[in-house]
Amino acid sequence: MISQPLKPYVIGLDLGGTNSVFGIVDSRGDIKATTAIKTQGYLTVEEYVDAAFEALQIIIDQVGGIDKIKAMGIGAPNANYYKGTIEYAPNIVWAHEGIVPLAELFKKRLGVPVAITNDANAAAIGEMTYGVARGMKNFIMLTLGTGVGSGIVINGQLVYGCDGFAGELGHVIMRRENGRSCGCGRTGCLEAYCSATGVARTARELLATTNTPSSLRELEPEKITSLDVSIAAGQGDELAKKVYDFTGEMLGEACADFAAFSSPEAFIFFGGLTKAGDLIMNPIKKSYDEHVLNIFKGKAQFLVSGLDGSSAAVLGASAIGWDIQDDVNA
Amino acid sequence: MISQPLKPYVIGLDLGGTNSVFGIVDSRGDIKATTAIKTQGYLTVEEYVDAAFEALQIIIDQVGGIDKIKAMGIGAPNANYYKGTIEYAPNIVWAHEGIVPLAELFKKRLGVPVAITNDANAAAIGEMTYGVARGMKNFIMLTLGTGVGSGIVINGQLVYGCDGFAGELGHVIMRRENGRSCGCGRTGCLEAYCSATGVARTARELLATTNTPSSLRELEPEKITSLDVSIAAGQGDELAKKVYDFTGEMLGEACADFAAFSSPEAFIFFGGLTKAGDLIMNPIKKSYDEHVLNIFKGKAQFLVSGLDGSSAAVLGASAIGWDIQDDVNA
Repeated sequence: MISQPLKPYVIGLDLGGTNSVFGIVDSRGDIKATTAIKTQGYLTVEEYVDAAFEALQIIIDQVGGIDKIKAMGIGAPNANYYKGTIEYAPNIVWAHEGIVPLAELFKKRLGVPVAITNDANAAAIGEMTYGVARGMKNFIMLTLGTGVGSGIVINGQLVYGCDGFAGELGHVIMRRENGRSCGCGRTGCLEAYCSATGVARTARELLATTNTPSSLRELEPEKITSLDVSIAAGQGDELAKKVYDFTGEMLGEACADFAAFSSPEAFIFFGGLTKAGDLIMNPIKKSYDEHVLNIFKGKAQFLVSGLDGSSAAVLGASAIGWDIQDDVNA
Repeated sequence: MISQPLKPYVIGLDLGGTNSVFGIVDSRGDIKATTAIKTQGYLTVEEYVDAAFEALQIIIDQVGGIDKIKAMGIGAPNANYYKGTIEYAPNIVWAHEGIVPLAELFKKRLGVPVAITNDANAAAIGEMTYGVARGMKNFIMLTLGTGVGSGIVINGQLVYGCDGFAGELGHVIMRRENGRSCGCGRTGCLEAYCSATGVARTARELLATTNTPSSLRELEPEKITSLDVSIAAGQGDELAKKVYDFTGEMLGEACADFAAFSSPEAFIFFGGLTKAGDLIMNPIKKSYDEHVLNIFKGKAQFLVSGLDGSSAAVLGASAIGWDIQDDVNA
């Protein structure tokens, strides 16, 4: 008879700008119970944690009480793993003006170890724990959403750097001259081209500067979104395909530079853009092969996240919980 | 009374294109004995190892025999740490056509653990063991010589990647259009601008495209070397200073991208170019501050190697010996 582990679950919290989604997860990545609260309905972090605790109580009871919980992992914007804080998060009312010790507050309320990191790092650990990176020691996760995020794993460990903020690959410079302006205040960043807004902007630029026929010409240019591009591409739209070719070409070039850094066995892509499938993945692979240094050719796999889209963020966050458990109780 | 460790020394081998220099080193980085053989005087790796063994016998006896030796570390071009091999090294007659198991061969002859890695990785471990990176867990070593090499340390470990070849930062692309051709067969690599040959080429370009007065105009353009540029800059030559400004500007931009990857606490520079001191280091720091993502500003130190130039390569190689000892006998 195989004995049940004493604490078979971790709590994952996907803390987004609108919703905070909680899940209780087992070691296989099965979500046993979920709940959610609004992220923004509270003036202070204490009120937020109070509301979260109240909502969590119910699902914790569902799985047998807090004694069944090993730890909690949080994926959040502007999170610092070393300090357990959210720092100056512009889109969260109770965290936009300072440094909020969120891990410590949850730890006090729940009585279990709590770790926090940014969404892309959470996705990387989620992939390593439950997804396509199981067994991998060296890979790079790229999240293609509103922004371009990254989580880097080297020697089986997430790279946090000296300050907890390493892995900002959306902000390597891809165009040193006449680069697009980026939300970070600089120009030419990967994110300015390969995020959802970057993709929409590329579409607008191609509409304005080429005569390629496209169903996107029927839309108001300023209102075109990456979703419109995706739908058009799915219908065989020539211009939309060129948008993906351009985006994939740049991602491939960027990955070639990343290979020179850490020579990963895989690049794993996550987020809305990956829904385009081969339309985006093939240009990435082609561009990578063309641009990467000879010694790295053919070594890296290009994969799409293996985590279920709707629950991927909660799973990623929960995976940090297993990780901290190892650090704290080993 | 503090007892003497049983095996207080490691052997370091700096395997260069011309000379192979051996040193027996203690844990403080003091070189107790040295010897050398010609790298190229042998047709096969077996002959090379025989000659090396013969030369080593003498200095091993000087320090009390092989029982005093913990391990051997080798710094060599085209070295693969995981496999213990030198692979297709174009400038070594006995290794340019295949894969040579150098670590295994030395291990058999000496009876001690042997590890091998490339020069820049050896320099990074040397810096961490005896130099300015003592106590650091996250830093990037950049070696500015004939080429631009790098050794990356993350979480206190050297980054080897999935194949042993990670850390080729000389080959990130700095100019995606109209870039200089690089020895790797591509264009626009950092190395094409910031190596010794890159610096000389920058000088030739500035001589041809500007009217800046310069003592370098008295030389035949094709014969100008980075040493000429260094001497001229030391004498206050305006054009030579502009060469360093350009080189430093690009190195600073590159380091800003590297920060987005691993957020190191320091960038450490090694090699001929660092002899220019502030003339090169100040432009690097200025450019880095201008280009780095806001959250990383002011966090990284910019340091010049703390290892004695003439013996740095041997010290670096020897440091790998301490490292493998930890892996093998822990």
